[in-house]
Amino acid sequence: MAAGTQAPDSLPRPPMKWDAWGDPALAKPLSDNIKKLLQQVLGTTADEPPARSAESVRLTPSALPESDRAALAAIVGPEHVGVADADRLTRAGGKSTVDLYRRRGGEPQDAPDAVVLPGSEEEIAAVLAHCVRQRIAVVPFGGGTSVVGGVDPIRGDFTAVITLDLRRFDRLEALDPVSGEATLGAGLPGPRAEELLAAQGFELGHYPQSFRFATIGGFAATRSSGQDSAGYGRFDEMVRGLRVVTPAGVLDLGRAPASAAGPDLRELFLGSEGVFGVITAVRLRVHPLPATKAHKAWNFPDFATGAAALRAVEQQETGPTVLRLSDEAETGINLAMTDRIGGDQVAGGCLAVTVFEGTAEQVAARHERTRAVLLAAGGTPLGAEPAVAWEHGRFGAPYLRDALLDAGALCETLETATQWSNVDNLKAAVTAALRESLRETGTESLVMCHISHVYPTGASLYFTVVAAQKGDPIAQWSHAKRAAGDAIVAAGGTITHHHAVGADHRPWMTAEVGELGVRILRAVKDALDPAGILNPGKLIP
Amino acid sequence: MAAGTQAPDSLPRPPMKWDAWGDPALAKPLSDNIKKLLQQVLGTTADEPPARSAESVRLTPSALPESDRAALAAIVGPEHVGVADADRLTRAGGKSTVDLYRRRGGEPQDAPDAVVLPGSEEEIAAVLAHCVRQRIAVVPFGGGTSVVGGVDPIRGDFTAVITLDLRRFDRLEALDPVSGEATLGAGLPGPRAEELLAAQGFELGHYPQSFRFATIGGFAATRSSGQDSAGYGRFDEMVRGLRVVTPAGVLDLGRAPASAAGPDLRELFLGSEGVFGVITAVRLRVHPLPATKAHKAWNFPDFATGAAALRAVEQQETGPTVLRLSDEAETGINLAMTDRIGGDQVAGGCLAVTVFEGTAEQVAARHERTRAVLLAAGGTPLGAEPAVAWEHGRFGAPYLRDALLDAGALCETLETATQWSNVDNLKAAVTAALRESLRETGTESLVMCHISHVYPTGASLYFTVVAAQKGDPIAQWSHAKRAAGDAIVAAGGTITHHHAVGADHRPWMTAEVGELGVRILRAVKDALDPAGILNPGKLIP
Repeated sequence: MAAGTQAPDSLPRPPMKWDAWGDPALAKPLSDNIKKLLQQVLGTTADEPPARSAESVRLTPSALPESDRAALAAIVGPEHVGVADADRLTRAGGKSTVDLYRRRGGEPQDAPDAVVLPGSEEEIAAVLAHCVRQRIAVVPFGGGTSVVGGVDPIRGDFTAVITLDLRRFDRLEALDPVSGEATLGAGLPGPRAEELLAAQGFELGHYPQSFRFATIGGFAATRSSGQDSAGYGRFDEMVRGLRVVTPAGVLDLGRAPASAAGPDLRELFLGSEGVFGVITAVRLRVHPLPATKAHKAWNFPDFATGAAALRAVEQQETGPTVLRLSDEAETGINLAMTDRIGGDQVAGGCLAVTVFEGTAEQVAARHERTRAVLLAAGGTPLGAEPAVAWEHGRFGAPYLRDALLDAGALCETLETATQWSNVDNLKAAVTAALRESLRETGTESLVMCHISHVYPTGASLYFTVVAAQKGDPIAQWSHAKRAAGDAIVAAGGTITHHHAVGADHRPWMTAEVGELGVRILRAVKDALDPAGILNPGKLIP
Repeated sequence: MAAGTQAPDSLPRPPMKWDAWGDPALAKPLSDNIKKLLQQVLGTTADEPPARSAESVRLTPSALPESDRAALAAIVGPEHVGVADADRLTRAGGKSTVDLYRRRGGEPQDAPDAVVLPGSEEEIAAVLAHCVRQRIAVVPFGGGTSVVGGVDPIRGDFTAVITLDLRRFDRLEALDPVSGEATLGAGLPGPRAEELLAAQGFELGHYPQSFRFATIGGFAATRSSGQDSAGYGRFDEMVRGLRVVTPAGVLDLGRAPASAAGPDLRELFLGSEGVFGVITAVRLRVHPLPATKAHKAWNFPDFATGAAALRAVEQQETGPTVLRLSDEAETGINLAMTDRIGGDQVAGGCLAVTVFEGTAEQVAARHERTRAVLLAAGGTPLGAEPAVAWEHGRFGAPYLRDALLDAGALCETLETATQWSNVDNLKAAVTAALRESLRETGTESLVMCHISHVYPTGASLYFTVVAAQKGDPIAQWSHAKRAAGDAIVAAGGTITHHHAVGADHRPWMTAEVGELGVRILRAVKDALDPAGILNPGKLIP
């Protein structure tokens, strides 16, 4: 690996492994059960993967002229600009399965030409102005956990591409305990944000699977949804205000909890994926730390019965904080409990998990009401333990994928959402599309699904796919992903419920919002970023 | 009144009186108590108002060339185009106090040059295309209840202005009882929409004060909020999808209950006030008709104590359907109960109203939890009766205004919203601005306020002002309104919580969303309505 020139080699790095998910200490080796299952059912081979080292990776050389590096260093300080390969590799992309295959492949890797760590909105504005003048693309970067190519360093027609890492926006800027509002810096990772709030007795309650690494700004830019969304809502529902630095100026949106003063412009930046501007701070609804918590698992004879039960709970507003349902396939291999995948099953049928938070009185009442509805809907209580086990392993699934890839299995996830009346139809259509398209690549597949988020009028469906790697696994997955995306659109689902669009879902954006919807997005883009430097190749077709 | 030419004189009319609110049969004459109060405190004179007749009103003549009338008639049918004065007068504006003064004044009235009633999206598209070619402005029109000049027939630089009355979009287009979603035509007035839903066992639950006249499309276009918003949410929170016809094409937005496929473009049309396109249908969350209902009134020693109590209820999610608090002044004259204004008071202090809906079990549990919180927060229960009386008169206040205007009193309302921690400050600032600015016009004033809508992080403040008419009451109110708007902005409130922007709040839009926010609105407008024919002079500064 060639040494970087002129920049210190010590830029703070994302906490992620460069070629896998997260913290190496938390890696999950596959059990013998799972290995056997993979070999028997899917025909994977269990070769030991070759050892890989970051130092052996070849990156495309930095295309940033020294004059630009010096100009950027003059804005943010030389210690906040990195052009070393070590800095660039760790911002070379996100964490989709395709990203990991790319990192693991022997080809030269695309990487940003430089990494810049601004420390203020004024510095961001100056960096953007420089990049407009010099025609340099800019990729805003939080935790780097995108699974849709959202932080890919796409140069497009520009002379170079830099990654703007927001990690220095790391403060709890304000807390209003009476109103229950906190203003959090965009670069704060989930755990640090919760730590700062907890010190004041509050909690945000946003726990997506990427929680340990992803940031407040990333949650906003991708319309994230967390595992506690039944209780605390999607991230966009928590947002009261946000600040955004664009090439055309700074926006400070959200004067009141609700308003009729025209369209809600906050909603244009939730899900904007860095193409309209750089989110620097988000004002959020927070709640007092819950005093009590209760876990209850349930079994349903089949997915349709379980889905109807979840629907009843949500439509009758009985108040669980977490509400999830695994289908028969996912329940069968205990995917909901990553610590015991492939081990003894808690039950056949479908596993549902409920968690309740609040005061002791609230938890008791919410559990009581929910229990009555689930019993009436045909559920069998399984006690607390499987739900506790789910919670314990809730952020663990991506580690499992690392081990599966090493064992010659192709593993990826995708998600959608639809009305309750269309859940069964959409689930069947996506499952069939995945199985059939993978069969065309020469492998059977295991397609598992759970309802991860519920709404009064519908639910999300989260699919996990495991197959055998055949030929070029990137081409193989692209084939399956295309089939799944087309099936989602044809069956009336949304192309993404909480992973965002990035580069990977762009082909379906016109189907999602219509040709005129795309023109609206382009018009907003042209108003805020007329040079088009912000995150090219993402979101807008 | 000059007879219209060539159009049938029988176009269906809005159900509103041309010079007052609503149905003449529901007019509320002032009690002797109120008349005495007005004379003593404000110095109004009790002259009998002159008799007025629609036939005596002079309208500016229709500027629409006969060729355009014929072209529009060819699109929608001649029976759906009106150029008669009777058709034009009833669409000459909304129902703000200034509107009523204009209607009652002797000056020639601005009115649309024609009224067009399209029957399909194709017809709307053809009308818009014709108006783009001929440079004719188009004002979308629902119930005509705007109190911010939202339907004023502003001609701007155009050759003529027509009103597009959506009343023929009057169907329940679809109902999905499993998902709890209904698609309602934009022209359906509130009562008819509820009647169609009730026949299938469902309810929307949107009850703004304009409920009897305002339409589904108007609720969406103005980000309406109803009196049951504590239980069923604001109108924008009920929206799952909408169809919009623009000069650039048709949008069909909202594929799923929630999505991460970019910014939520639905939110651009909620609050778009007809400047981006014509909303034709809205897909909405509905709920089963509630089986049970309970009313409970409360008294609080002062507004701050009552506000803290409402905050506790909302932040602890105890579940009331209605939750309101009148301040001391409003409580003092029983404004919350329009049938007994100025009569015996139920209590000093501040009156709060709660209503609970749902199954018998839900109502009992919600009431029980709410009661515990309100008691702990210093409330005194007053029983059901005052809350039942509030509900009985809930749509009556605008009739009262008609009588006040006749009695020489100036009466108008305005509303804002802010964080809980800023409620007292904002209330004091707006009250002072209104009293002082009206004093400058030579009259004392009665400024009353209530919390009409609550959120976990804040609340709305709804002000009612009564003063004596002095000189030109339009100029008088403009002076007070300007002072109140400036005070709202300076004190950190939103310029409108649920009345929308229209023409009247435009001067504050730049303060509300910033100069760059306004540029975004203009960019969207340019993409969808490049000729600028849709509702000129509204929303966008």
